[in-house]
Amino acid sequence: MSTEPTLADIEDAARRLAGVAVKTPLLESSLLNERLGARLLLKPEPLQRAGSFKFRGAYNRISRLDEAARKRGVVAFSSGNHAQGVAAAAQLLGAPAVILMPKDAPAVKIANTRAYGAEVVLFDRDKDDREAMARRIAAERGATVVPPYDDPFIIAGQGTVGLEIAEELTARRIAADAVIVPCGGGGLVAGTSTALAARLPGLPVYSAEPVGFDDTARSLTQGTRQGNVPGAKSFCDALLAPMPGEITFPINHKRLAGGLAVSDAEVRHAMAAAFASFKLVIEPGGAVALAAALSGKIPIKGKTIVVVASGGSVDPATFAQALAEAA
Amino acid sequence: MSTEPTLADIEDAARRLAGVAVKTPLLESSLLNERLGARLLLKPEPLQRAGSFKFRGAYNRISRLDEAARKRGVVAFSSGNHAQGVAAAAQLLGAPAVILMPKDAPAVKIANTRAYGAEVVLFDRDKDDREAMARRIAAERGATVVPPYDDPFIIAGQGTVGLEIAEELTARRIAADAVIVPCGGGGLVAGTSTALAARLPGLPVYSAEPVGFDDTARSLTQGTRQGNVPGAKSFCDALLAPMPGEITFPINHKRLAGGLAVSDAEVRHAMAAAFASFKLVIEPGGAVALAAALSGKIPIKGKTIVVVASGGSVDPATFAQALAEAA
Repeated sequence: MSTEPTLADIEDAARRLAGVAVKTPLLESSLLNERLGARLLLKPEPLQRAGSFKFRGAYNRISRLDEAARKRGVVAFSSGNHAQGVAAAAQLLGAPAVILMPKDAPAVKIANTRAYGAEVVLFDRDKDDREAMARRIAAERGATVVPPYDDPFIIAGQGTVGLEIAEELTARRIAADAVIVPCGGGGLVAGTSTALAARLPGLPVYSAEPVGFDDTARSLTQGTRQGNVPGAKSFCDALLAPMPGEITFPINHKRLAGGLAVSDAEVRHAMAAAFASFKLVIEPGGAVALAAALSGKIPIKGKTIVVVASGGSVDPATFAQALAEAA
Repeated sequence: MSTEPTLADIEDAARRLAGVAVKTPLLESSLLNERLGARLLLKPEPLQRAGSFKFRGAYNRISRLDEAARKRGVVAFSSGNHAQGVAAAAQLLGAPAVILMPKDAPAVKIANTRAYGAEVVLFDRDKDDREAMARRIAAERGATVVPPYDDPFIIAGQGTVGLEIAEELTARRIAADAVIVPCGGGGLVAGTSTALAARLPGLPVYSAEPVGFDDTARSLTQGTRQGNVPGAKSFCDALLAPMPGEITFPINHKRLAGGLAVSDAEVRHAMAAAFASFKLVIEPGGAVALAAALSGKIPIKGKTIVVVASGGSVDPATFAQALAEAA
């Protein structure tokens, strides 16, 4: 595989994931559609194994390691969802896992990662170089680093989200007008847009990010990778990547129609809408694409829009607060 | 169709529902499995159109009406989920709907039923005879009464839940030890157990009910239909049927391995577990089967148990309270 995965690579990932990952259905609410004057289809990856799309890429990546490499194990760094995805995939594939997590990651994500049998090493988001720490642990143990997005097998695994969207739209004869995908480092939207470009050419795909962490949106405009302004805050803990990925950005630059950015208030409103209309628990970072659609960052009136909800790991208090504030 | 639907009737309903109803996937959480020492598979009907399994039966029933009967419309009485299911199905099939709802039904269920275009008539649960009211409205308008469970087409439609469970278990080569299904009037468990008896013979199926409304459990023990003791209270508003159905009970008496009953506290715990482990919003009545499994009403250690989550219409405050109390 070259650095840019092809449709064939994504189809190959789909075969490995068959019967292991959940094939999430596209959900819709006719009441919500009526209120919006649009048709909204939601791909619910909180229902995925380990609670987010991250399992897809992690399983595809680790399944490529030979027996000896699997025994030496894997190392990953993540604010939470990639951690859980790698830990769950490693456990299924018999590989020990060390996961580096920021000290301020949600407690539920740290606890779950440990419960999947992974060894968790905490780091300081502001002081420590997590990539250097991961490389050092990998060197000591002969383990393989499983990066969160800058890896062709990871991108191909996440791309199965796009493959499934294309297959369900085709089977149900639905003509979509746009697809919106949450974006941190850009692996999910890179893989998804690659699959969609091949299967449903011409369908525009947008990234969605929190305001202040809209590095991909600004990079798409500039044409080169831009970092985020230091000091920005968002409760979308899953999407705080410092800048677009080295491998993901060229793909996204070629494939995406544009980048959208949403406020925390818009995200809370989307979480409450998902509770009421889809009976689904979406974490803040997982709800940015839905938030972009609901707050009209692209025109949706009279259109059919697919949004990906990427994950559901959220503390009960944060969730209850989003419901209360949006009421 | 005789009063007792056959596998062929359920398969016929499945063909009508294809592409209209959501084929909900069986979900599982390896973390929850590990904590329980069991394998728990959850069928998430909150993701169904209109938020519960009720859409399946309502659509199957109304789709059998000819053009003239559809134009005269349908009438239904319901505490909420059947109301929404009938209203949504009637809207799709071009039939006007009048829905009788108790005054104390959750506000969200009444509002949603109206939003599906139905005319809502409120009644007093303690004083009014809802069935007589429904018959009178039906006679005045030439409309068809769509009963909540005592109808072969309704039971066959709900039975597609069992068909899908059997198909997914077979496709994934999973040998289940038991299936637990929420039970009000008994239509869902009657249809589901009929499909399972034909497709996976020998697999025990249990009904689950709230304590105080465990009329089906007591009727199964007695061998004849027993009413509930007056004055019992439960927050499982979807499951307050006064006694087992005339058509559903003989089916359930023949098919079920037994009836389980759970407390409101056990239900709240199950709702919180579904939030954390399945990222799913389940309403109180929808969570009784999961509650029965989690609280060990049948032995689950070392076993593979399928539970149906039947609906997700719950007010944010009730949901937040369940999360807070179970924490």
